[in-house]
Amino acid sequence: MTIDLRSDTLTLPTDEMRMAMARADVGDDVYGEDPTINKLQELAAELTGKEAALFVPTGTMGNIIAMLTHAGRGQAIIVGDQSHIYHYEAGGASTLGGSPMFVVPTHKDGMLDLTRVRASLTDESDDHVARTALVCIENTHNSCGGTVLNQDQMQMITDLAHSRHVPVHMDGARAFNAAIALGIPLATLIQNVDSMMFCLSKGLSAPVGSLLVGNQEFIRKARRIRKLLGGGMRQAGVLAAAGIVALTTRVERLVEDHANARLLAEGLAELPQLEIALERVQTNIVIFKVKSTHLSSDEIVAPFLAKAREHGVLLSEMGEGRIRAVTHHGIDTAQISTALNGIKKTLLELHP
Amino acid sequence: MTIDLRSDTLTLPTDEMRMAMARADVGDDVYGEDPTINKLQELAAELTGKEAALFVPTGTMGNIIAMLTHAGRGQAIIVGDQSHIYHYEAGGASTLGGSPMFVVPTHKDGMLDLTRVRASLTDESDDHVARTALVCIENTHNSCGGTVLNQDQMQMITDLAHSRHVPVHMDGARAFNAAIALGIPLATLIQNVDSMMFCLSKGLSAPVGSLLVGNQEFIRKARRIRKLLGGGMRQAGVLAAAGIVALTTRVERLVEDHANARLLAEGLAELPQLEIALERVQTNIVIFKVKSTHLSSDEIVAPFLAKAREHGVLLSEMGEGRIRAVTHHGIDTAQISTALNGIKKTLLELHP
Amino acid sequence: MTIDLRSDTLTLPTDEMRMAMARADVGDDVYGEDPTINKLQELAAELTGKEAALFVPTGTMGNIIAMLTHAGRGQAIIVGDQSHIYHYEAGGASTLGGSPMFVVPTHKDGMLDLTRVRASLTDESDDHVARTALVCIENTHNSCGGTVLNQDQMQMITDLAHSRHVPVHMDGARAFNAAIALGIPLATLIQNVDSMMFCLSKGLSAPVGSLLVGNQEFIRKARRIRKLLGGGMRQAGVLAAAGIVALTTRVERLVEDHANARLLAEGLAELPQLEIALERVQTNIVIFKVKSTHLSSDEIVAPFLAKAREHGVLLSEMGEGRIRAVTHHGIDTAQISTALNGIKKTLLELHP
Amino acid sequence: MTIDLRSDTLTLPTDEMRMAMARADVGDDVYGEDPTINKLQELAAELTGKEAALFVPTGTMGNIIAMLTHAGRGQAIIVGDQSHIYHYEAGGASTLGGSPMFVVPTHKDGMLDLTRVRASLTDESDDHVARTALVCIENTHNSCGGTVLNQDQMQMITDLAHSRHVPVHMDGARAFNAAIALGIPLATLIQNVDSMMFCLSKGLSAPVGSLLVGNQEFIRKARRIRKLLGGGMRQAGVLAAAGIVALTTRVERLVEDHANARLLAEGLAELPQLEIALERVQTNIVIFKVKSTHLSSDEIVAPFLAKAREHGVLLSEMGEGRIRAVTHHGIDTAQISTALNGIKKTLLELHP
Repeated sequence: MTIDLRSDTLTLPTDEMRMAMARADVGDDVYGEDPTINKLQELAAELTGKEAALFVPTGTMGNIIAMLTHAGRGQAIIVGDQSHIYHYEAGGASTLGGSPMFVVPTHKDGMLDLTRVRASLTDESDDHVARTALVCIENTHNSCGGTVLNQDQMQMITDLAHSRHVPVHMDGARAFNAAIALGIPLATLIQNVDSMMFCLSKGLSAPVGSLLVGNQEFIRKARRIRKLLGGGMRQAGVLAAAGIVALTTRVERLVEDHANARLLAEGLAELPQLEIALERVQTNIVIFKVKSTHLSSDEIVAPFLAKAREHGVLLSEMGEGRIRAVTHHGIDTAQISTALNGIKKTLLELHP
Repeated sequence: MTIDLRSDTLTLPTDEMRMAMARADVGDDVYGEDPTINKLQELAAELTGKEAALFVPTGTMGNIIAMLTHAGRGQAIIVGDQSHIYHYEAGGASTLGGSPMFVVPTHKDGMLDLTRVRASLTDESDDHVARTALVCIENTHNSCGGTVLNQDQMQMITDLAHSRHVPVHMDGARAFNAAIALGIPLATLIQNVDSMMFCLSKGLSAPVGSLLVGNQEFIRKARRIRKLLGGGMRQAGVLAAAGIVALTTRVERLVEDHANARLLAEGLAELPQLEIALERVQTNIVIFKVKSTHLSSDEIVAPFLAKAREHGVLLSEMGEGRIRAVTHHGIDTAQISTALNGIKKTLLELHP
Repeated sequence: MTIDLRSDTLTLPTDEMRMAMARADVGDDVYGEDPTINKLQELAAELTGKEAALFVPTGTMGNIIAMLTHAGRGQAIIVGDQSHIYHYEAGGASTLGGSPMFVVPTHKDGMLDLTRVRASLTDESDDHVARTALVCIENTHNSCGGTVLNQDQMQMITDLAHSRHVPVHMDGARAFNAAIALGIPLATLIQNVDSMMFCLSKGLSAPVGSLLVGNQEFIRKARRIRKLLGGGMRQAGVLAAAGIVALTTRVERLVEDHANARLLAEGLAELPQLEIALERVQTNIVIFKVKSTHLSSDEIVAPFLAKAREHGVLLSEMGEGRIRAVTHHGIDTAQISTALNGIKKTLLELHP
Repeated sequence: MTIDLRSDTLTLPTDEMRMAMARADVGDDVYGEDPTINKLQELAAELTGKEAALFVPTGTMGNIIAMLTHAGRGQAIIVGDQSHIYHYEAGGASTLGGSPMFVVPTHKDGMLDLTRVRASLTDESDDHVARTALVCIENTHNSCGGTVLNQDQMQMITDLAHSRHVPVHMDGARAFNAAIALGIPLATLIQNVDSMMFCLSKGLSAPVGSLLVGNQEFIRKARRIRKLLGGGMRQAGVLAAAGIVALTTRVERLVEDHANARLLAEGLAELPQLEIALERVQTNIVIFKVKSTHLSSDEIVAPFLAKAREHGVLLSEMGEGRIRAVTHHGIDTAQISTALNGIKKTLLELHP
């Protein structure tokens, strides 16, 4: 039996979600007439403490819409050098929107380097330079290992950006993981960001869909850009029905994923061949490296993933020699033990 | 009881579709691991006689992906002046892709003016002029009243474009309506086009989703652009399950929609206050105008729609004084009679 | 001795211009420190009755800057179907700026079809549709034969656009020809347009450069876009010096070019093999066709141009069988007679 | 008497250049008929050892053209985090071309971090990731202080990029300074780069213009993009004439600018209040900082520049507390002494 820790995007819908989808009351959402979509959007706005919400097919589309809504053609977007937006969304803001991205360093905990953000915030005083129209943050931060930006960190960024009249968008693909880890309502955590995208898939297990939240004016513009991108679906209430189940019944259980990630991380920390920063295992992501004095990361990672797969454990690579495991609702505590055993066997064979 | 003839996008999923969605075997389609998506894509490729297919959330996205895949930045796309792509997709090819659109007249039957297409096909010999990278056609043609381009017409366009090494994309949102109206397989009708998008929603009644078809290389590139646009959904097999039901059980019944449209059109043709071109009622769309010697179209259409709504009939406007009715699986023959009565009452009150 | 009537872009700088260039007081215009550029810009603003002006290397760049300044990403620009912007500027507004162009018919006198402009002006009420941000006009109208839009026509367009809060940009590459033909100051003719580009080259004979005029805010933004496009030159005062000579000494003499064009046109009108609309020879452009009952335009034009060249007359083709002759300061009345003779010989040999 | 060390863009044309401009044999370059432009382009190709060259109005446009020619929409461009292209060209490749920029660290000598370049080179194997189409380098490197990349460094970059089939473009605004500093022909230095832009203005003192060089196919495409951007000028031979003077008579004298920069730098190095890296003063740029234990760079730089201006020395700021002086043909050895005195007085008053 394979234990698939590659990503929480792999989560399958629950029976309750399937039932809800089969029974969903639907309509044409392009006309604003899908009652289940409308209900989901209201629920999302309420849970995040924002005026309005918009259902979108994917998190990537939610982020692109936010960037194109905030930043016009030729206006710069500040992104972290480890961010998903910068690396794994095909450069969409620049490609589709003509908005150049300016890159600032990310600390190991997912925090942007504030000094460099400050230096990168530009206005229109110099014709050589694109003016900044948006700062993007990511919370939890995937590439840093699911690390959480807390309220203070969030506020430092929003205070800085707002002092220059620049809005802040949060890529909150796993925003509920952050709120659960901090033990505060998501609405409190994101109270100062101007827009946020969060996913119904991933830890919340809905099959498809994300939500973009912000004020009324922002969502009105975002809706137009969703249509432009081809994200205006028709009877999408069938998806929204699963999303409502996700938001009303699946948020609190993220604590289990976090506990399992912790369990896994502590097990891995005992293995002398591995390198892991336990203090950065804060949610449902565990990142580790295999130590080696003589092998390059290319020589380590691919064979490790292949061998682990033979031992029934699927993991993913994160670049620079890093290996990632993600816990989710398809993984229980017993499977964590099994996965640890598989990884031990892998190490024994490859790095005895 | 309201009879909603505004659009076939309003169609609700059938019970069989809902059941299929609830039971769908799903996986993460970004990894290519959703078996139901894979099955739908194979089925779509087979039915259309193309090498490969790609599931996309909407028809608009399917068209944008096709345009961005065929035409690079700065390369021109020839579109009809009545086409959905030109008018109702927010200028996406130009906005998102930097591909200018060049516009040619559309004949009343939806056919592009070939003389003007020929004159508009450009190469790189003149630095002042963008070179043509794509010709788009629409079949059935929404704005012309659901008219059908037959095999000969299709071939005239593809022969012309191909003689200049320019590919042809077909916006086939209602492609099955065209094939059914012509009584030939869809694969035969589109055998010479290089790519096509068709919708599972609309007449086929699936809740969400369209397919893009073409050769392997085209679909490989299209897949990358789908990701860029944020159209790479995860467990979208729940939607694909409904799509498979649509393709396997709902195509043949489009004849009923066509028959109902005919019935409606013939009824409308008997009303002296209306103007209707019966020869262009070829599929499930009926377009008519209210005659008037003294009122402008603005003065006619909005009051007519409002009054018809009072009489239980929902219609939509198509610009230039035109009113559109669309039949679909939520409309049966009895409802056509009722709708005709509602329209008669409307005319009696407004244009006695 | 060849008589080159291909275009007035061919005009060579006068001795006075060359002298002025050699003596020009220059500085770094990116710093705003080139006194000759500054002087030229002030002069241009004054002559056109606008608040401010910006020197740009070409008319094409002036038009692109205007379009990108007025229209944001995804905002539509209405252009005439015969306009230079639409056909001969490589689709720049769409390619570089992501602004889709919407096309309206042009009457034979260069006037836009107002009914179609009205129908094409869109707002943000429909998510499917890009909103209109600009209407472009061309005066004199190159492709219509150098025809002039008069004050009434200009006002009909600006009134319509402004009633919908949409600005109007005029491609005035040959704007002084229009003003001279009408016998009114250019400032009067363009008083209601929001921006205009005119060329120092062409009839005014300066070697390089055009000016964009508008209000202060427009020019401030335009300056940023000029830099973005790579149009911010350094010691461009050398060019501006020639431009000042052009504006102060070469405007009035455009009447000679118009008289010569008239002379040429009347001569051509006497030739039975040719078709020419004398009423549309209003400035320095003459367009005519060779009549034929059996030859296609492709079979006529290229051989005609080649043969005329043998007889010492260079002409250009304008598509659809049309041949263009343009008068300019390198052409005097005697040369018009010689050119007519060359054309007669050409016709005798090819179409006896 | 003010000594203007803000930039070598300030250089005024020489008398010989002015004379050449006044006498230039010109034609319409859009038709390829300007003999002086053609001569300049041939000369540039020869001097740089490339097949062909294209005259462009500015260095910024040369760089944009190169980037848009090499990289299609959505294809990534690797740039250094200190590069002019990334910071001071308004994000043009992304804004105008839809090509996202990926940023790698720059060493203090202007060299790109090869490890990070290697890690950033991507192909099409992952749909999430834009593929790399170009690597850009800068030589001499403005922001690093006019530092020179030598042949070995150049080769390390081109070997790496070419091993992944990715071309390399060099922003050689001051390429001749690099060749002169190394004592080798420019053609040798750039033999492996696929394209390069160099400026006729700056140290070579021509008033306006830059050249883009590369192979025939590249220049053919570049010419089309120049037209698109509005860079296709008419009788630009007047500018090219000055450029020919620059290339044939002004290259060798760059050694004087370098000697003067050295003199200035050594003088500054003796001032205890300043911090300067003498080993990085390699061409005509001198960068230094004012040391301070208690003031922020914002508190230092602006007052310093203002006070130095009072003492007759104009300098510019380079961000992060850095002050830049650039030598050029308007500055002789005596003026360096005067400038040093002005700077000493400034320091005495502000930082005694």
